[in-house]
Amino acid sequence: MRDVSIIGIGQTPVGEHWDLGLRHLGYQALRQAMQDASVDYADALYVGNMLSGETSGQAHLGALIADFAGLRGIEAVKVEAACASAAAAFRQAYIGVASGLQDVVIAVGVEKMTDDVGSTLTAGLASAADADYEVIHGLSFVALNALLMQRYMYEYNVTREDFAGFALNAHANGVFNPNARFQKPITHDSFMKATMIADPITLLDASPMADGAAAVILCPTEQAREFTDKAIQIRGSAVATDSLSVHDRRDPLWLQAAEISSKKALHQANIAPTDLDFFELHDAFTIMAALSLESCGFVERGKGTWPAKDGQIALDGKLPITTRGGLKARGHPVGATGLYQIVEAVQQLRGTAGENQVPNARLGMTQNIGGSGATIITHILENNN
Amino acid sequence: MRDVSIIGIGQTPVGEHWDLGLRHLGYQALRQAMQDASVDYADALYVGNMLSGETSGQAHLGALIADFAGLRGIEAVKVEAACASAAAAFRQAYIGVASGLQDVVIAVGVEKMTDDVGSTLTAGLASAADADYEVIHGLSFVALNALLMQRYMYEYNVTREDFAGFALNAHANGVFNPNARFQKPITHDSFMKATMIADPITLLDASPMADGAAAVILCPTEQAREFTDKAIQIRGSAVATDSLSVHDRRDPLWLQAAEISSKKALHQANIAPTDLDFFELHDAFTIMAALSLESCGFVERGKGTWPAKDGQIALDGKLPITTRGGLKARGHPVGATGLYQIVEAVQQLRGTAGENQVPNARLGMTQNIGGSGATIITHILENNN
Repeated sequence: MRDVSIIGIGQTPVGEHWDLGLRHLGYQALRQAMQDASVDYADALYVGNMLSGETSGQAHLGALIADFAGLRGIEAVKVEAACASAAAAFRQAYIGVASGLQDVVIAVGVEKMTDDVGSTLTAGLASAADADYEVIHGLSFVALNALLMQRYMYEYNVTREDFAGFALNAHANGVFNPNARFQKPITHDSFMKATMIADPITLLDASPMADGAAAVILCPTEQAREFTDKAIQIRGSAVATDSLSVHDRRDPLWLQAAEISSKKALHQANIAPTDLDFFELHDAFTIMAALSLESCGFVERGKGTWPAKDGQIALDGKLPITTRGGLKARGHPVGATGLYQIVEAVQQLRGTAGENQVPNARLGMTQNIGGSGATIITHILENNN
Repeated sequence: MRDVSIIGIGQTPVGEHWDLGLRHLGYQALRQAMQDASVDYADALYVGNMLSGETSGQAHLGALIADFAGLRGIEAVKVEAACASAAAAFRQAYIGVASGLQDVVIAVGVEKMTDDVGSTLTAGLASAADADYEVIHGLSFVALNALLMQRYMYEYNVTREDFAGFALNAHANGVFNPNARFQKPITHDSFMKATMIADPITLLDASPMADGAAAVILCPTEQAREFTDKAIQIRGSAVATDSLSVHDRRDPLWLQAAEISSKKALHQANIAPTDLDFFELHDAFTIMAALSLESCGFVERGKGTWPAKDGQIALDGKLPITTRGGLKARGHPVGATGLYQIVEAVQQLRGTAGENQVPNARLGMTQNIGGSGATIITHILENNN
């Protein structure tokens, strides 16, 4: 297998794009990435998306976006793993290049959520969970996460306030990300007084839905220098799954798939968690940030909120997370989020994250979660120029 | 890249499975394939599906089916390319093994269509076409194909009757396929008198919707003998795309993506079209059978219906097609169809197609079409034992 590097990145602002369709959003991110990489062709296109059928009446995004981007004819396909769809598309792009079959490959994640009617969207998001055993009882996706958070608070004797640091950190970083959906800081007081959605999850525990697209260009590491001197290498790539339904897990508060996929990715990269300069985790809800930190081995079980309380997760902390706002402030266009994480990690590793820059970032990890932990995809990226 | 072989196949009957969910259908095909291959594990699962969100309120089929099949934890993902979703999943499985990353890989295609309300299903199927430029005008998927057939009849001066042979041949072969949705022959007279759906397409030009699942197990060719002595090698694999909307093509009667992907696959296999012993083509409508034969170079432009009139496409003909009933009689569970084609091709190459056996079949081609030709995926399989 060949080593693979990222040679170009692109993204649209995350927000409400009522004037743009899926093809336009996908194209904007893709074109930016191709210009960034100085390529005008590609061997294949992998599209990450979850809800295009439900929200836009449109399947078949591979051919759609390839054609609209001026790449008619190339191999193109959509990859779906609920909210982990974009990292799943990135993973297939990685395998395509690593295999030797494809040289220049595009991965783009795209989602449109904000001009859809609310009921369809809530039902669509719930399709990430088990339709027959969870959703049938009336559980929405936020309700599922509320059950997890409730249980977590009970088991480990923590309060909602202990999660505040995750939201505060994300919004503080979002201020400096021109593509973030929210670019305003929040206060501890506003976090505590935020509107309840599903007890104990409030508006400020939950990431916002959004429209957006993010894209990267991959090629074999040994060819990367022909295109750019700022290539970022993929050092680890792993996917693991778990039961769709939370009640089928031995321990609902342990993200088995996060543990397995992060261990595999770290093993492939031959590094320890402490070697990482930052971690773009999947803070769809504050509870998921805590569970992710525990399951990946950064903190002990039950202590997932601790790093949020003493500055460890800040840009100059021991393990910076959600450095450009995370799902919470940058926004969570579900099928695109995994590639926003990758794009932001590449910015950090290139040293172009501006006010959000993590000092001397060389090694970063991204983790994209589908459902309440049923598909977890971890990547490790390195600037080894 | 490594050579890849198919070591196990499985399928459910194609029909109305109102008592089974997506997980059950997928599992039945997958389990049969694993037993056929004598494997009890897998490194990865690729699921082909188009409409689970719309018809079952369920996304995230990778993790869902992996877990239900007793493979919790493994890498799993869904791949979608409209009606070509199953061949697209097979293609990703092929790349995964060829790359050296994965050894034993499962591809399963699954679809549930018959216990959904009709309006949702018609809208869902139309999402294979361009929502913004085709479907918005009220075009359903069958209407789009009716326009193509109408144009074909006008351009080449043929009549609906000229297409009869495709339906007659498919139904004649379906009689001997215990998994076919329709196991009764039709007559020329019944074809001519069939109920009109969208002029000139009648019930007997169109393939039926259905529930079903089909699966295969892949592994490196050099390891195949450890599992079975009846492995079938993948000699060619190619995907090409085209514009989603028919009106954007230079020639609406030419399947550019069929031409490109079949040429690529034949080139990879280093064979000529005349070397093929049979061709499992995508006869979603009789017109698509004719267009496919022309675009792949089996007959001249405008003469696509000719092989249907003189026995060339029969089991003992020059180029047998739809040997186990095709989409027309076996049925068309859209996101599973591409893997039914592969499973049936493997049966032919193993010599286990019973009354449908093509004499001395060694080399076969399968072709799965998404939309009205926007994604076309071609595979060439060989028995070189």
